[in-house]
Amino acid sequence: MSSLITVSLSRQESIQYFYTVRQNSERLCQSLQIEDYIIQTTPEASPAKWHLAHVTWFYETFILTVFSPNYRDFHPRFRYLFNSYYEQVGQFWPRPQRGLLSRPTVEETYRYRAYVDEQMAMLLETAEEEDWFDIEARLLIGLNHEQQHQELLLTDIKYNLAFNPLRPAYREDLPISSCKNAPLLRWFEYTGGLESIGFQGDGFAYDNESPRHQLYIPPFKLASRLITNGEFLAFVEAEGYQRAELWLSDGWSAVKKMGWKTPLYWEKLDGQWWQMTLAGMRLLVMDEPVCHVSYYEADAFATWQEKRLPTEAEWEFVARELPIQGNLRDSGFLQPVVAEQDTGLLQMFGDVWEWTQSPYSPYPGYRCQSGALGEYNGKFMCNQMVLRGGSCVTPNDHIRVTYRNFFYPHERWQFKGFRLAEDL
Amino acid sequence: MSSLITVSLSRQESIQYFYTVRQNSERLCQSLQIEDYIIQTTPEASPAKWHLAHVTWFYETFILTVFSPNYRDFHPRFRYLFNSYYEQVGQFWPRPQRGLLSRPTVEETYRYRAYVDEQMAMLLETAEEEDWFDIEARLLIGLNHEQQHQELLLTDIKYNLAFNPLRPAYREDLPISSCKNAPLLRWFEYTGGLESIGFQGDGFAYDNESPRHQLYIPPFKLASRLITNGEFLAFVEAEGYQRAELWLSDGWSAVKKMGWKTPLYWEKLDGQWWQMTLAGMRLLVMDEPVCHVSYYEADAFATWQEKRLPTEAEWEFVARELPIQGNLRDSGFLQPVVAEQDTGLLQMFGDVWEWTQSPYSPYPGYRCQSGALGEYNGKFMCNQMVLRGGSCVTPNDHIRVTYRNFFYPHERWQFKGFRLAEDL
Amino acid sequence: MSSLITVSLSRQESIQYFYTVRQNSERLCQSLQIEDYIIQTTPEASPAKWHLAHVTWFYETFILTVFSPNYRDFHPRFRYLFNSYYEQVGQFWPRPQRGLLSRPTVEETYRYRAYVDEQMAMLLETAEEEDWFDIEARLLIGLNHEQQHQELLLTDIKYNLAFNPLRPAYREDLPISSCKNAPLLRWFEYTGGLESIGFQGDGFAYDNESPRHQLYIPPFKLASRLITNGEFLAFVEAEGYQRAELWLSDGWSAVKKMGWKTPLYWEKLDGQWWQMTLAGMRLLVMDEPVCHVSYYEADAFATWQEKRLPTEAEWEFVARELPIQGNLRDSGFLQPVVAEQDTGLLQMFGDVWEWTQSPYSPYPGYRCQSGALGEYNGKFMCNQMVLRGGSCVTPNDHIRVTYRNFFYPHERWQFKGFRLAEDL
Amino acid sequence: MSSLITVSLSRQESIQYFYTVRQNSERLCQSLQIEDYIIQTTPEASPAKWHLAHVTWFYETFILTVFSPNYRDFHPRFRYLFNSYYEQVGQFWPRPQRGLLSRPTVEETYRYRAYVDEQMAMLLETAEEEDWFDIEARLLIGLNHEQQHQELLLTDIKYNLAFNPLRPAYREDLPISSCKNAPLLRWFEYTGGLESIGFQGDGFAYDNESPRHQLYIPPFKLASRLITNGEFLAFVEAEGYQRAELWLSDGWSAVKKMGWKTPLYWEKLDGQWWQMTLAGMRLLVMDEPVCHVSYYEADAFATWQEKRLPTEAEWEFVARELPIQGNLRDSGFLQPVVAEQDTGLLQMFGDVWEWTQSPYSPYPGYRCQSGALGEYNGKFMCNQMVLRGGSCVTPNDHIRVTYRNFFYPHERWQFKGFRLAEDL
Repeated sequence: MSSLITVSLSRQESIQYFYTVRQNSERLCQSLQIEDYIIQTTPEASPAKWHLAHVTWFYETFILTVFSPNYRDFHPRFRYLFNSYYEQVGQFWPRPQRGLLSRPTVEETYRYRAYVDEQMAMLLETAEEEDWFDIEARLLIGLNHEQQHQELLLTDIKYNLAFNPLRPAYREDLPISSCKNAPLLRWFEYTGGLESIGFQGDGFAYDNESPRHQLYIPPFKLASRLITNGEFLAFVEAEGYQRAELWLSDGWSAVKKMGWKTPLYWEKLDGQWWQMTLAGMRLLVMDEPVCHVSYYEADAFATWQEKRLPTEAEWEFVARELPIQGNLRDSGFLQPVVAEQDTGLLQMFGDVWEWTQSPYSPYPGYRCQSGALGEYNGKFMCNQMVLRGGSCVTPNDHIRVTYRNFFYPHERWQFKGFRLAEDL
Repeated sequence: MSSLITVSLSRQESIQYFYTVRQNSERLCQSLQIEDYIIQTTPEASPAKWHLAHVTWFYETFILTVFSPNYRDFHPRFRYLFNSYYEQVGQFWPRPQRGLLSRPTVEETYRYRAYVDEQMAMLLETAEEEDWFDIEARLLIGLNHEQQHQELLLTDIKYNLAFNPLRPAYREDLPISSCKNAPLLRWFEYTGGLESIGFQGDGFAYDNESPRHQLYIPPFKLASRLITNGEFLAFVEAEGYQRAELWLSDGWSAVKKMGWKTPLYWEKLDGQWWQMTLAGMRLLVMDEPVCHVSYYEADAFATWQEKRLPTEAEWEFVARELPIQGNLRDSGFLQPVVAEQDTGLLQMFGDVWEWTQSPYSPYPGYRCQSGALGEYNGKFMCNQMVLRGGSCVTPNDHIRVTYRNFFYPHERWQFKGFRLAEDL
Repeated sequence: MSSLITVSLSRQESIQYFYTVRQNSERLCQSLQIEDYIIQTTPEASPAKWHLAHVTWFYETFILTVFSPNYRDFHPRFRYLFNSYYEQVGQFWPRPQRGLLSRPTVEETYRYRAYVDEQMAMLLETAEEEDWFDIEARLLIGLNHEQQHQELLLTDIKYNLAFNPLRPAYREDLPISSCKNAPLLRWFEYTGGLESIGFQGDGFAYDNESPRHQLYIPPFKLASRLITNGEFLAFVEAEGYQRAELWLSDGWSAVKKMGWKTPLYWEKLDGQWWQMTLAGMRLLVMDEPVCHVSYYEADAFATWQEKRLPTEAEWEFVARELPIQGNLRDSGFLQPVVAEQDTGLLQMFGDVWEWTQSPYSPYPGYRCQSGALGEYNGKFMCNQMVLRGGSCVTPNDHIRVTYRNFFYPHERWQFKGFRLAEDL
Repeated sequence: MSSLITVSLSRQESIQYFYTVRQNSERLCQSLQIEDYIIQTTPEASPAKWHLAHVTWFYETFILTVFSPNYRDFHPRFRYLFNSYYEQVGQFWPRPQRGLLSRPTVEETYRYRAYVDEQMAMLLETAEEEDWFDIEARLLIGLNHEQQHQELLLTDIKYNLAFNPLRPAYREDLPISSCKNAPLLRWFEYTGGLESIGFQGDGFAYDNESPRHQLYIPPFKLASRLITNGEFLAFVEAEGYQRAELWLSDGWSAVKKMGWKTPLYWEKLDGQWWQMTLAGMRLLVMDEPVCHVSYYEADAFATWQEKRLPTEAEWEFVARELPIQGNLRDSGFLQPVVAEQDTGLLQMFGDVWEWTQSPYSPYPGYRCQSGALGEYNGKFMCNQMVLRGGSCVTPNDHIRVTYRNFFYPHERWQFKGFRLAEDL
């Protein structure tokens, strides 16, 4: 099992939890046109239809066909169409071609969801007591999995709409924060030492957050808030994107190959900087956290500033003292916002996932689980970097202080930014 | 102007003609789901939505903005989005990315059509008499252009649906021909000589069909009918696709690169041959004309048979004695059908476009017209081959004996087949 | 057999002819460094070592192993390494990887040549009389084949050296023509009519030059000389490479994809135009024929001038009245030269291969021969264009008035130029 | 400066050291044919000529032009041709095209070396005392740099010769080890704890080995020797290359994309396993360490065995107790050999670089130096994995216990193998 669970839900609680998560996915799609569900403008940004079906396939594959002996597939080919990458449960439709399928239609996809919901509710009510522990464990993974795809739904919709020269909005009615000026950037000092990080205790966590383990953290300083658009614009204007010496070698290759000149979604129109948001095109707000940057851009900015990015251990060591609150999805902005005036450590949770300088590796003592669910996390522990803290499109009840997100260093379409650190 | 026109329509006739063609396009889309309008599974097969908008853009660009002084664009960016390849009227959205746009929606696209229809009707009624000759000429090109896109609509819908492993039908209710056995293949002999081909006279024709010109046709024989699926299957079973010596050099490269083993849309399932049609998957009918083959496959088959493909001059020389009738779009099959038992020359019009061995070159004396409409035909006169006779998805009133269709030799997604010829 | 032969050589004549051709190949390589024999800077431009070995392989494969019963291969893997594209005699080393082989060394390659030369001489002396006709026929193809590769040796050496930023010369001692000013371009008129072209008669010719056949040539005009660098520079300076309307569609794609801004080998340095030649970098001579242009560039220039390229029939119809003389390889320039002052038809042979507007197709009645030698010409009769007249690197005794050279329209590394034609 | 140096050499010692290293490079090339110097069969495997010139360029660029005021370049374009990747000292010829240059010739390249040697000797003798510290520091980097390229010379020659279907040997006279049977694989246990790794003290080291820093090492077990060919063959025969569940996600993509079925250089001929070596084709010796595997293959094998790879800290923690001896370059095998029968920890140095599970990241407190020499190590600290211990082609005086080699996880052409570790 790809998670550590000491949760114990009643049958009714689990059904309630299940429905809540399931409805949230559909609610996120309410403002879409049917056409918007279909397209995939880059292999990374899957169609909304595919997300809705794939998370459903997850319950079907890992729960219903295992524990419901009479379960009949809604459609025999959906196993193939909506598997993402689980090699051990069979072949799958190629990821770059998810946007090339007009069928099943959106309406059929919703019927598929309703069918599986009904079957799941029946199972959750009637399952044998001896299966319950397993079912609950898989259900929790399934629901956390669906929450992850809720975040991807929003990032992928943003990408797919932004690709269109008409720059259509996902929702024109999104609120705008009233904060205007980012607080001064302060530095906090930490002595570190022989510490422990990783998950331990009650509740749900992914397997990659464990085991909790000791490690030595040298003394360090951490910035009080995220780097802003205005600060990053200074880097752009200082020709940061033309100065090879600021970049990692692979970063410089990416700059040249992709033609990067700014963060993703920035556009200069008639002398003014704009950015595409889920609410459509907006003027770039200079005091908002910079967003949609690659690891390479974050690292180059830090090099330019003669600073560095924090390690994930440093981040977790500091963040574990803080309450998990911030501009997460429930705030409704769906866009990073200007930090409040405050002299403490700000924006550790929400707004943007924070790039760390830590490669995504197994924790000491980590063992990847056997079986297809073991493919959830472990097989990605190479070539990716860890991000921490959640973003403005992360469900509030999904994030933890030990949560390890991971992406390839060149990827920019998630809500990703960074804060600086420094050796003490 | 890219056509030769000696037609003269009254205002009312022209409005009537206009509406008929316009409605035909929309009628062809009646059985589509909204999702089906959006996708593009290969750069060649444009989305149905794009076709509907592009043909509309044509009237807007070449007629309304020229002759309607107060014309206001339906949307300022549609000029960019729906230009296909007319370099002289500005930039255009890249062809391979036509399927990456969810907006405008299908509903907006139909509104765009209605708006342009209304504007066109107004212009056709009220245009100055002195403009009428020009308007009529451009209108006829526009309507013929739309008819060509009606054929592409069907070939592209077929490709885009066939790409889906669910193999959905465009229309499950398509009729099936009652003919069962193809007639014996006979050979007709012609002495040829100093002859003329090309368009001359009344009615509409494209500029590439002229000037009518003399050329010398050596004596030849022509097959009485098209090659059938059964005959082509014999080639497949004789390992024709593995025998390099039967293929043109570029053809053999294509076989290896594309992995061709049969014509497009053939599938062997449980020991039986099936083919994808607009009505969905059907058993391969052995006596139907083989369809969806490239020039290379047609040529390799001919080489295997120690025959050759006819030249376009041979085809036209023979076809001009025949009435223009056959399995064209109005027959409603939307699929090649078994030839009737008859001892004459069969299937010259309809069923499939017939590959000729003639490269698509200008006729002697041809001069490409200036201006953007000159890009219609002339700029493609290199690297493509001529096909003749129309197909089962060609509008009946669109085809002529002098009509020159042209495609790259590797392309297979149109309804293309062939008949054999031989030197005498 | 891929040729038509009514030649009859004595044994001694054939041996003499054989040695002459063989020595010429090696003489062309005398000025090379060992390193120059190895590299291949584009798939089209094979290493000199490969040419020397491949032409040798030809005799080994098509003559020695057929007629010398005791023939033993010089090396068992050379059959694989030095086959070019003859599918019927087995697999071959991939063309784009010919420059990735350091072994056999150059010295071994020369030993391979000497070995085959010796074996061939022995066969030519001692062959059974009953085999002689076949052997002679294959020998003539082999020698003409080697002559073609002598031309390729020079064009490929030029390309491979020009790729080097040091721009090394093949031979710094090449002579320079004394002509300074190109004569006025005149137009000659021809009535054409029902004519015949193609090879007939005594001597060697390739199969693609036959059968001689009738065709109708409409009245036309032909330019008295080739287009010059100066004339082509006017096209460059008129922004010809930026004006889409002048180009064939595939030509425009090539311009954009390849970034063409001038003919191949032109460079502007410090305000002056230079060109790479086999003698190294030289100032561009404005009155020399323009060279190293693609079909697309030739066609665009003609369109700009409101003229066209001649057909191959027009060219042959005119050229057959002329002696075969001009700036061919024996002149020693190895570079096109300024035409002499003369009021007649100039430069029909030599200087540059002339692009015609004729696609490379089989002549009426052409039948590709069976067997591997049938792969010599016929399988390329698609997607290529005919060029006529030979170039400054064509052996003088290799060219004929009926000779059909052919290349893809985008290729530029041969010595190719053009003259204009016009309808009368 | 990209190194930490507390070495202090006399002028004469430094000249002596310089000549020794320089001569070693040339001695390694003695058995090459001129042709072998030229080719590059993959972007990674540079031509021998390029290596010889590039290491020379290094002294020219970073020493001679800085400290020899009258230094004149041997050739003005060599700065461009032989820069590898130092963005701060100007543009460079593209890496994938290093094998496309026949000039400078090999002979010219040796003259370039001799010229720079002479200039360097003069500088080392006559430099101002105030410059000596800087010169010595740069000289040591240059010599270590050249030693690294000596290793690359051998790995690249091997790759470039192995690409040739003739499989020519670099040296047929290489010795063969007399050991026959690998000793039993034993496990050693270590308690770890709060330890320090990294370079400190006298002598030369690269900057990436410092600062020496504390870190916590959990208890672990380490295998006594490297995994052998025979053990890896068991993985091959257990269909390890077909079982997705054993592989990292990026590893599985590499297996499918590259078609890997065995380690690099293995071939099965007539039922027996062979491997290409610098001595040509040899039967695969089952008890030799497996070599030329990617990180992905090492990791998949470990997963199959339910073990893991060691971290670089574990490796260094253990290795620092051992003398630096083993099958390094001076042993003359230039091929991994069977371990001696011994009950201790074996093969920690030499034979093959050992993949660790540690991504190549900066040590805590590492700061990349400014200036072009700062590009030596720091800019590669992303996407690569650390390897430790040196190989059979590493110069004996080049390796250290703190030495961090790094390569992308998919790369196989270096002499790379692995040993297993396990959590305690």
